[in-house]
Amino acid sequence: MTDDDLMALALEEARLATAHQDVPVGAVVAVGGAVIARRHNEREHLGDPTAHAELLAMRDAAVALGTSRLDGAVLVTTLEPCPMCSGAALLARVARVVFGADDPKAGAMGSLYNLGSDPRLNHEITVTAWVRAPECAALLSEFFATRR
Amino acid sequence: MTDDDLMALALEEARLATAHQDVPVGAVVAVGGAVIARRHNEREHLGDPTAHAELLAMRDAAVALGTSRLDGAVLVTTLEPCPMCSGAALLARVARVVFGADDPKAGAMGSLYNLGSDPRLNHEITVTAWVRAPECAALLSEFFATRR
Repeated sequence: MTDDDLMALALEEARLATAHQDVPVGAVVAVGGAVIARRHNEREHLGDPTAHAELLAMRDAAVALGTSRLDGAVLVTTLEPCPMCSGAALLARVARVVFGADDPKAGAMGSLYNLGSDPRLNHEITVTAWVRAPECAALLSEFFATRR
Repeated sequence: MTDDDLMALALEEARLATAHQDVPVGAVVAVGGAVIARRHNEREHLGDPTAHAELLAMRDAAVALGTSRLDGAVLVTTLEPCPMCSGAALLARVARVVFGADDPKAGAMGSLYNLGSDPRLNHEITVTAWVRAPECAALLSEFFATRR
């Protein structure tokens, strides 16, 4: 599957979050083109401050693969990962992160920080930005417009 | 309870991690001096790359308090939090972080980054460093010495 195809799945996931009033962000973990996990933001739904789509998808992927090391995996997410999720991707040793919309307020893979490219840390991550970015951003702006 | 007392509990937790070959790090979440959650590192035990003591303790605290916002909470941890755990503390809006040993390789609350003090982010965290630091560091160095 291409980055574009994987992002289409992440967008499908993101749309599910609004059913429980969560910010529409979706994430997919794939290895060798095969989808291992797909989740959406469940912070409000679970009452769990760590329940971002990316973190949940990486946890599911680790369970599915039976290892805490997601070597060679790609994490595809509709929104640029925050410091928590970027840090989790480093700990999981994800090979590549693909994101849709950037996040100028909290993004840690290019906006405020660039945690994927810090030679002081024990792992580096290749980042591909702005895949289907207009769709990913529209989903967010529509959500916030309805809440005003 | 004082920071010192809370760190004693975090140290007790940390020691439990070695029973399952996990790096001995422990964490406690307290609100108004009352302990709400206490956990230790379970990365190897659970096969979950996100199962750091701090993240697990904050998740438990959110469940215990019935909210994803840990306003007024203090997170006490034997090791300086990594980017993932520091980011999670920001998302949970923890008021204060107390840590024991610093982590020059991955610490994100003073060593490599200072995520608690970034005015661009939507929350800031007061950090108290080096509480019972020698004990916290000794636990780690003893663990790594036995694995060589």
